[in-house]
Amino acid sequence: MTQKYYAQIYVTLRPSVLDPAGVAVRSGIQQMGYDNVEQVRIGKYIELTVNASNLDEAKTQLDRICDLLLANPVIETYRFDLTPVSAEVQTP
Amino acid sequence: MTQKYYAQIYVTLRPSVLDPAGVAVRSGIQQMGYDNVEQVRIGKYIELTVNASNLDEAKTQLDRICDLLLANPVIETYRFDLTPVSAEVQTP
Repeated sequence: MTQKYYAQIYVTLRPSVLDPAGVAVRSGIQQMGYDNVEQVRIGKYIELTVNASNLDEAKTQLDRICDLLLANPVIETYRFDLTPVSAEVQTP
Repeated sequence: MTQKYYAQIYVTLRPSVLDPAGVAVRSGIQQMGYDNVEQVRIGKYIELTVNASNLDEAKTQLDRICDLLLANPVIETYRFDLTPVSAEVQTP
């Protein structure tokens, strides 16, 4: 019996890393006439579903996927939320 | 007197829009040996701070910024969370 989990993953630049895309967006916002917007940082948002036998297994697997594939640990950090999806899935 | 709000903005592709980047990431995850991951969708995650006199004003302004600059309403949807930042800022 495995459980399906819905994962929301947030990958953001480390605070010490410059974010030229964020600076460009801030400049675009200012050209719209809003000079009250600051500290714009652009990151990635990834949604996926994972089948695992328990929450810990899903967490371990997602940590590995994030470290190796989704985030560059040198300049980025990540965090994720896992939510069990109601329908349980029978393993074949 | 204005209040500073911390905004977390999530821009995601509409469900009907194909996501080739998501398919590529799913294929990468499968090559890592995890075939239990599905429905990978890639979006954008934007953090910023905005000074506004109240929550409604901040919401209205962010809606405009998202519609015109951060999201492409034809293929993307967005949502955001606004959190008041504790320190209040005096207008000059």
